[in-house]
Amino acid sequence: MTYEPMDANWDKKVRDSFHRQTFLQTLGAEIETIAPGYCTLTLSRRVDLCQQHGFIHAGVTATLADTAAGYAAFSLMPSDSTVLTAEFKINLLAPASGNSFSARARVVKPGRTLTTVACDVLSLANGEWLPIATFLGTMMCLQGKADSK
Amino acid sequence: MTYEPMDANWDKKVRDSFHRQTFLQTLGAEIETIAPGYCTLTLSRRVDLCQQHGFIHAGVTATLADTAAGYAAFSLMPSDSTVLTAEFKINLLAPASGNSFSARARVVKPGRTLTTVACDVLSLANGEWLPIATFLGTMMCLQGKADSK
Amino acid sequence: MTYEPMDANWDKKVRDSFHRQTFLQTLGAEIETIAPGYCTLTLSRRVDLCQQHGFIHAGVTATLADTAAGYAAFSLMPSDSTVLTAEFKINLLAPASGNSFSARARVVKPGRTLTTVACDVLSLANGEWLPIATFLGTMMCLQGKADSK
Amino acid sequence: MTYEPMDANWDKKVRDSFHRQTFLQTLGAEIETIAPGYCTLTLSRRVDLCQQHGFIHAGVTATLADTAAGYAAFSLMPSDSTVLTAEFKINLLAPASGNSFSARARVVKPGRTLTTVACDVLSLANGEWLPIATFLGTMMCLQGKADSK
Repeated sequence: MTYEPMDANWDKKVRDSFHRQTFLQTLGAEIETIAPGYCTLTLSRRVDLCQQHGFIHAGVTATLADTAAGYAAFSLMPSDSTVLTAEFKINLLAPASGNSFSARARVVKPGRTLTTVACDVLSLANGEWLPIATFLGTMMCLQGKADSK
Repeated sequence: MTYEPMDANWDKKVRDSFHRQTFLQTLGAEIETIAPGYCTLTLSRRVDLCQQHGFIHAGVTATLADTAAGYAAFSLMPSDSTVLTAEFKINLLAPASGNSFSARARVVKPGRTLTTVACDVLSLANGEWLPIATFLGTMMCLQGKADSK
Repeated sequence: MTYEPMDANWDKKVRDSFHRQTFLQTLGAEIETIAPGYCTLTLSRRVDLCQQHGFIHAGVTATLADTAAGYAAFSLMPSDSTVLTAEFKINLLAPASGNSFSARARVVKPGRTLTTVACDVLSLANGEWLPIATFLGTMMCLQGKADSK
Repeated sequence: MTYEPMDANWDKKVRDSFHRQTFLQTLGAEIETIAPGYCTLTLSRRVDLCQQHGFIHAGVTATLADTAAGYAAFSLMPSDSTVLTAEFKINLLAPASGNSFSARARVVKPGRTLTTVACDVLSLANGEWLPIATFLGTMMCLQGKADSK
């Protein structure tokens, strides 16, 4: 599905917003691709991001999915607006083993106020990308508030 | 509601598991209290844990809630078992402003395989603890696998 | 927690809206209590509401929870508005055996646009009310649209 | 994605189970297709299945999605097992207008105990199938219990 962005500046506003998120720098997350209604983020395994069995923590997985989903939605929102997560659900499908992670978000239904977004998180293990989590969430558009404030 | 733990060692096993989670150390999360079926974690605001508006990132909030919920469930599980999150949902109720955060998890329904857990996350702002998120999730008990492996 | 209703007519508008829902009549659901931010609905077991093992169908349980949650939220909304469910999650805790069911919803966080609501569903079996499901959902207020249209 | 069923009798066991669900008969739901890991159910609009604005009730939509998801999962489970819904989340994307409804479920990740399933619900309006809801849930396999008991 293709979406028409309302803000010609969608690419720059997503990247600017992303780079203001200090927690994403702490995690080492990076933008792989952005397109109207879509966003893919990547992250590399680090020993300081793990749970008790040495896998990437579910909180890291959830952060990656939530952020990719937020920017997939934000890319379709008007200028002079900001995005916030109203709620999300995540199902963890397999241990987050592997060394590279990719969160691939797609808008399911855009809306003036609420945008529903799905996201799959995959892990690269033995040369193959395998799903480790699936996410379904609701993003809210707050108009009249620039995201940079 | 009070729960009877199956593992006399519940307090120690939760704390040991918690301290093996490198990501929780990265975040600076700490155990405030553990009791059978209950767990409260705390975290202090840091500038490297924020989203684009300077509030604590929803991923940090979700990590704290998920971890508290996991240990509330794990405290009721038999020895020689480990816990993993099957899925969770979180509703974000207010911006995570404030300087101190508390995730307070309680088991809603324990089970041999699945345990349902609720968690409230609160923020201390102007001397008052206010809810910023509410969480509902499913924890799975894997028997025959020690959590330390 | 007590809430201040914005619409003095909250009791009547909830009851009127409830009685326009043909599906609730089909199920035989009834309002037990309404208060600002709270709603309890009841339903009796019928053989035509069951799943394959003779328990009340999870879809009936979900309908009851969703409706109670919607009216708990609607009771706090301004006049000349209507309510709709944006999303919900339900955890099924035990088989819906028993002959009487009660869905008890409470607003967790009211908001101008979105209201977060929790709901517990209980079943009366052997003289005791036991939880069979727990629900967490998001209700949306649409202003400028009367619920009766 | 294609899945290998563990029970050669998967088609018959799903249909038999479906026909024992009295609530699905009450709603007039029907099986359109079953395949290993997939299930599509259909339902026609009736005036006794509506909410206050004359659209199909969200509880009907949720029932249809939950049931399709349950059978998508059940088709992959071993004989001498039964399926139950552990939890689900549903996002309502558009009013359930239209006269025909289709719930299309697909297994996201099968598992020995837990199976994650996604389901889209569509409505036929003006000759076009449009999404009205999306669902993500967890189905549990109970072994050693025939579904017909």
